[in-house]
Order: sequence, then structure tokens, then C-alpha cells
Amino acid sequence: MKATVIGLGLIGGSIALELKVLGYTVCGVDAKDAHAHMALDRGLVHKLASLEASLQDAELIVLATPVDASLKLLPQLLDMLSENQVLIDLCSTKGSLCSAVERHARRPQYVACHPMAGTEHSGPAAAVQGLFRDRFMVICERERSSGFAVAYVEALFAKMEMRTVYYEADEHDMHAAFVSHISHVSSFALALTVLDKEESDKAIFQLAAGGFTSTVRLAKSAPHTWVPIFRQNRNHLLEVMDAHMQKLVQFRDALERDDAERLESLMQRANEIKRIIDVAL
Amino acid sequence: MKATVIGLGLIGGSIALELKVLGYTVCGVDAKDAHAHMALDRGLVHKLASLEASLQDAELIVLATPVDASLKLLPQLLDMLSENQVLIDLCSTKGSLCSAVERHARRPQYVACHPMAGTEHSGPAAAVQGLFRDRFMVICERERSSGFAVAYVEALFAKMEMRTVYYEADEHDMHAAFVSHISHVSSFALALTVLDKEESDKAIFQLAAGGFTSTVRLAKSAPHTWVPIFRQNRNHLLEVMDAHMQKLVQFRDALERDDAERLESLMQRANEIKRIIDVAL
Repeated sequence: MKATVIGLGLIGGSIALELKVLGYTVCGVDAKDAHAHMALDRGLVHKLASLEASLQDAELIVLATPVDASLKLLPQLLDMLSENQVLIDLCSTKGSLCSAVERHARRPQYVACHPMAGTEHSGPAAAVQGLFRDRFMVICERERSSGFAVAYVEALFAKMEMRTVYYEADEHDMHAAFVSHISHVSSFALALTVLDKEESDKAIFQLAAGGFTSTVRLAKSAPHTWVPIFRQNRNHLLEVMDAHMQKLVQFRDALERDDAERLESLMQRANEIKRIIDVAL
Repeated sequence: MKATVIGLGLIGGSIALELKVLGYTVCGVDAKDAHAHMALDRGLVHKLASLEASLQDAELIVLATPVDASLKLLPQLLDMLSENQVLIDLCSTKGSLCSAVERHARRPQYVACHPMAGTEHSGPAAAVQGLFRDRFMVICERERSSGFAVAYVEALFAKMEMRTVYYEADEHDMHAAFVSHISHVSSFALALTVLDKEESDKAIFQLAAGGFTSTVRLAKSAPHTWVPIFRQNRNHLLEVMDAHMQKLVQFRDALERDDAERLESLMQRANEIKRIIDVAL
């Protein structure tokens, strides 16, 4: 069994490790030479190759580059695909990718996927085994993929101990904006708020503790990953940002009026998040 | 050595445990009978007593009630204090408490303290040993406390393996607004944003993963703790909320204009948070 992984960062490198464990011979491709060699040195892949050479004999091709690169590569890869090869992507946005290849003759060989897993780290050094275990794998527009391709990847994800769920591409992107992308915006903005303050008050971070770390952790995330995600999911993300800022304004108004009852009811309602995060995550 | 802890929640219960380890006989006081008995059952304190009885023979009195209750209790406790007793509070706001007792005859026996430690949980069930280890203990307005009282608590905090730092009360409150209180507002607002969406889309949380959990963890925090903190630190918090919302607006504007360069520079700047959270916390 041969597989090719294109893009050897956190996500690509981590799936390469899983594929190795499952018995695949894994060939890696990365536009950055340093990344490619680090992936080889860390044993994420068995060998390196050019994009074209890597497709020879691969039964599975995994596209795990940033979403802007993926948008360019996906149609090119479909052009180059041989019969029986299966291509998946692991991008955080699905609408623009699915649209880009909607009418491609080889569309049925492609399965649009998104593993709901990640960390704030990036690059091949961040790849870890077990990143996907017990997490959701989203498949979008399943009906546009061939039965063979879907069955192939479903079997793979089951072996990786993932739970496969099915979404329309636009629905996925909207959900991702609410439960992932806005968390990143919020963390970035929170980090910027305190970093700005630091310019006039060097010791502002001295008292920072666990709560602060938790809320700004995602602000460490890589711009080359997240700028294209935000841009491709722009409409949904703008909508969620507006909703989020409205909530902040509600808090601000209640605080300015010194309205204890309103503050209490906002917090009590927010406490319902326990129902979500104490169970599933 | 006898100590009294008033308020047996997360913070009071956790310091009671430390005091026990250090050889104190610890008497607990809590306005809620159920909390008091849970604290006794969990072994956080040796015995329970009324507020007045608990002060008999105690060399150290620790006030760890919510900040609104503390604001009322602090002057009353100073009224009741005997010579040589030392009183500390562990509240998250310091300005209003320090002001309230500024001219009290027994002010020197009081040391205004704030341990930079906590979790999103509350009540005696949340008390844990080691909560304060390696964390900062802030002492505010040290010059208003007697040398004896300061030396007493500094020795105690050293035994608890804490690092004592000194702030003016207002400076502490401003810093706390930046590195703690705004994180709570942000988490509450983020939780509300997605909970609102859930009303029209039941499955909105299905794809939530670690990043979401991290940013909303503090939204589980107790309103009875946080409403009075926000109110007592209202002016600083309003200022920080405005700064934070301005950052969100910068992100929103860049995204609306599809300005990749601006998004990238905002994120790169936010990435500097690594310098803070990869080291100290």
C-alpha cells in the first residue's frame, strides 16, 4: 500500500504517521525543502519526492497544505490522477475547494475531508501520533464522491479510530466559523490587547495565570495557516464576529449601567457551556 | 497555631488545606451551611464555628468570600480584631477593599493579598492542594500594613512556595483587568455566541474541539464570584473591553476588505504572545 502526503505540517505530518502505522509506504511532498527534510528526519514519511513522482503507484493521495495552496493544487491533482487513485484533502474550509472541482471529470475520486483536531503549533515538528484518535472526521458532499472512494476513506478513518460525520460544504464552513475560527479571532485579539498595553507597562504580563493562557493559546497559531482560512470563510466568519461583538457589547452595557442582575443572567446563560464541554471534549 | 478561614470555596478551601499541612488548626466559617459541612466532610478544615467564635485564639484570619461580601466583612472583622491577630483577604479586586479600611485604627493588622491562581470551578468541592504552589501572591499597599503582619504573611507564602510581589491597589486592579478579567468576559461572550446559535442549529457544537474548549473554559466560572469582581473593577474593565473590541474591529475591517497583508501582520504581532506563555505559565 502506497500513500502520498502533500504538505508535511501539523496535520499532514500527523496523518503520515497514522498511515505508516497502518502499513502504508508513505511518500512526502512539501514545497519547503526544510520542512520536507525535517519530516523525513523525524520519520513522518518513508521518502520524499517531487509532486509528480509522488503520485506514481500511490493508491491514496492526501492534500494537507494551507487552504490557499490547496485551492490551487486540488484541480491540478485531479488532472493528474489515474483511475482507482483516491484523493482527499484535510482543509479547514470546504466550500471553496468543493466549488473549485465541482464539475471536474475526476471529482468522484476526491473526498472532501476535515479532521476536527489540531493544536496551536505548526510545521513537521508539531506532528504527533494520535492527534486524530476519537475525533470527528467530516466528509463533505459525500454524494459527489464515488462509492468506492467513500468506502475506502471511511475504512481508513475507522482504523484511525475517528468518527466520520457528513456535512454539506457550506454547513461545515458555517459550523467551523462558530466553533473554531471565532475562537482563533478572539485569542488573536486578546493577545493583541495585552501586547499593546505592554508597550506602556512592561510588567503587564507578570500576573497572568492559567485563565489567561487558556484564552490566548490559539494566538500562537501560524498566520500562513489562518489568513487563508479566514479569507476563504470570510462571509461566515464576519457573521459570527458580529454576533460575538454584540455579546461583548451586551456585557459592556450591563457593566456600564452597573446592572448586576443583567450581568448575572448573562453569566448564568454562558454557564450552560458546561453541558457541552464537560461531556464531549 | 490556629487559623480561621472565612469563605470555604475554591480559594478559601484551598488555602485551608495548605494551612493544615503547615500545622495550623483550621477553623472554617461559611454563610452557606451546606458549603461549611462539605468543607468539613472533605477535611478542608478541622472544625466549623460562627464568625465571632472562630476569631477566638486565631493568630491568622483569612477572608476568602466573594468580593462583595468581603467589602462588607472587612471593616467588621477589623473592628473585632484583637491585638497581634493578622488578617488577610484573598480577593481578586483590591482597590475598593483597601479604600474601605484606609483609615481604620487596626488597618496595620490587615494585609491585602491576591493569589494569582484559580480554576473555572467553585465551591468547597473545587478546593485542591497545591493550587498556589509556584504562583504569584500579590500584596497591595504593603506600607499600610505593620512590619509584623507583612513579615508573618511573607513567611507563610514562602512556605506555600509562592512568589510574593508588591503592587499599589489600583495598579493591581488594572493589571488584573488585562490578564484575568477580560479573559473571563471574552469566554462568557464566546459561549453566549455559540449557545445563541444553537437555538436555531442544534448540532452547532458537534464539531467543537480542543481550541474551542480552551477559549470557553472560563465561561464555566460562577456568577456569584464574577459579577461582584466585574462591578468592583468596572472602570478598568470597561477600558480593557473597549481596547479588546477595538482589536476585534481591526480584524473585522481587514477581513471585510479581504486585506491579507493586514490580517497577516495582526496575527504575526499576536504570535508574540509565545514569548509570554511559552515561558512563565
